[in-house]
Amino acid sequence: MTAPRPDAQALADAVARGMLDRDAFSRWLGVELVTLAPGRCTVRMTVRDEMVNGFGVAHGGIAYSLADSALAFASNTNGRVTVAIENNIGYPVAVHPGNVLTAVAEETGAANRVAYYGVTVRNEAGVIVATFRGTVYRTRQHHFPQPATT
Amino acid sequence: MTAPRPDAQALADAVARGMLDRDAFSRWLGVELVTLAPGRCTVRMTVRDEMVNGFGVAHGGIAYSLADSALAFASNTNGRVTVAIENNIGYPVAVHPGNVLTAVAEETGAANRVAYYGVTVRNEAGVIVATFRGTVYRTRQHHFPQPATT
Amino acid sequence: MTAPRPDAQALADAVARGMLDRDAFSRWLGVELVTLAPGRCTVRMTVRDEMVNGFGVAHGGIAYSLADSALAFASNTNGRVTVAIENNIGYPVAVHPGNVLTAVAEETGAANRVAYYGVTVRNEAGVIVATFRGTVYRTRQHHFPQPATT
Amino acid sequence: MTAPRPDAQALADAVARGMLDRDAFSRWLGVELVTLAPGRCTVRMTVRDEMVNGFGVAHGGIAYSLADSALAFASNTNGRVTVAIENNIGYPVAVHPGNVLTAVAEETGAANRVAYYGVTVRNEAGVIVATFRGTVYRTRQHHFPQPATT
Repeated sequence: MTAPRPDAQALADAVARGMLDRDAFSRWLGVELVTLAPGRCTVRMTVRDEMVNGFGVAHGGIAYSLADSALAFASNTNGRVTVAIENNIGYPVAVHPGNVLTAVAEETGAANRVAYYGVTVRNEAGVIVATFRGTVYRTRQHHFPQPATT
Repeated sequence: MTAPRPDAQALADAVARGMLDRDAFSRWLGVELVTLAPGRCTVRMTVRDEMVNGFGVAHGGIAYSLADSALAFASNTNGRVTVAIENNIGYPVAVHPGNVLTAVAEETGAANRVAYYGVTVRNEAGVIVATFRGTVYRTRQHHFPQPATT
Repeated sequence: MTAPRPDAQALADAVARGMLDRDAFSRWLGVELVTLAPGRCTVRMTVRDEMVNGFGVAHGGIAYSLADSALAFASNTNGRVTVAIENNIGYPVAVHPGNVLTAVAEETGAANRVAYYGVTVRNEAGVIVATFRGTVYRTRQHHFPQPATT
Repeated sequence: MTAPRPDAQALADAVARGMLDRDAFSRWLGVELVTLAPGRCTVRMTVRDEMVNGFGVAHGGIAYSLADSALAFASNTNGRVTVAIENNIGYPVAVHPGNVLTAVAEETGAANRVAYYGVTVRNEAGVIVATFRGTVYRTRQHHFPQPATT
């Protein structure tokens, strides 16, 4: 990847940090932003005991929610309010309390007002615990006021 | 539907109630079992302020997690330890704090050790807020000790 | 369902019949329109020997393609050019040459320019052989010229 | 990637070539095997006029079927009869007659008798036209007779 233009990077940072500040559920999960670039995001969290399901492993909603947060941050980096419309996830490996999960979201394509992302979630050993594809819709609304075009 | 045999219903109840007791994340969500039958489950929860994302609406992981819990209870009703391998979800309508969500999971088919479920999540007005399909794997392990076959 | 307004039904019929006329692949498959209503469509086809995969059963692309055609017809019934952006399918039961497949597509929700459909594919015994969810994008283009609004 | 053991490569080749020989629908599509390795496969086809939908672009079932064939070949390379249970696909870019499509399928994980694959389909310009995730079930049946274990 070439480095993004400074203003594109600054916009991505401002959007994602502002979103995470208001994102109560991601903060409950303990989601941290690791790296951020236009159309791309890495986040991390540690699985806690209160996140298990009836089998004592992480509830499927935990890895999903981390991936969905990564998708939200990555897909809003261009400054347009962008929302998930359809996601899917596969679970090759169980997740346990204490695991540190890292999710990388990356844009794979876009058409009209729709964009496509792949998200891979790995545990601290680098093993893929979830593969996720997300489809998002770019609204006409901006995160920040736009300069008047004269 | 015809009523299930009393022992099938009793097994379904015992499995799902035992799972929910140990399911710390579903309890954090506030998931309640509403109705339960072999291969079928209805659950309910109320969305709280701490469940919102960076846009102030419910994080996508909330409706997903409710659907995934419904899937887990419904697919374990036959007494086999059964785990989700692949799920997908679409989000036609945003969910807000205060909304009461009801998810109905129902088996649509099965082959080998795999079974298929549809889950529909509605808000308190009866509007579909998420449609979900889940695929599960039936392990050889049972929830309860099996009678010896002599 | 209440009956659609006569003009809505006429538009649905005109759109779907026009699409099927130009849809060379659906015609190769042998897809027939069975019933059509706004937001809803039933199609049918018979599986032929040339549709099998390396195991001698119908290639996964066959039931998928039938479901995708049902989605296309149903989602264009309102007269807007509408395209699939994301689909998923589960295969509980194998399909064999000679099977007659019927797919029913139905809208489950809509938001912004996106709509959501469920499609169920059954064989001639009424057994579900595929469950499919499709997400579509409604472009601004119409199938037929629009009356000037003065 | 390290090179596979010669016998693993020979098995992969024998399985995939045998499957393609019997796969009437992949042959109708014009699918060619480009490269093959254990857990990985690249296939290619050229889109023809008879593959279009009602909008004159390739029917969604075409890119899907190519991806599903790539999945079938890749996931059977280990010699076990393996079948797709659940697939999903996103369509960022339309495909036209004359386009040459290349699909790369790669295993991303496995657990119990289930394995997970990602498939990316690109046109001749290298642009991603479809992203696909497939989940497969490994049966106990082998493609070739197994040596007796004494």
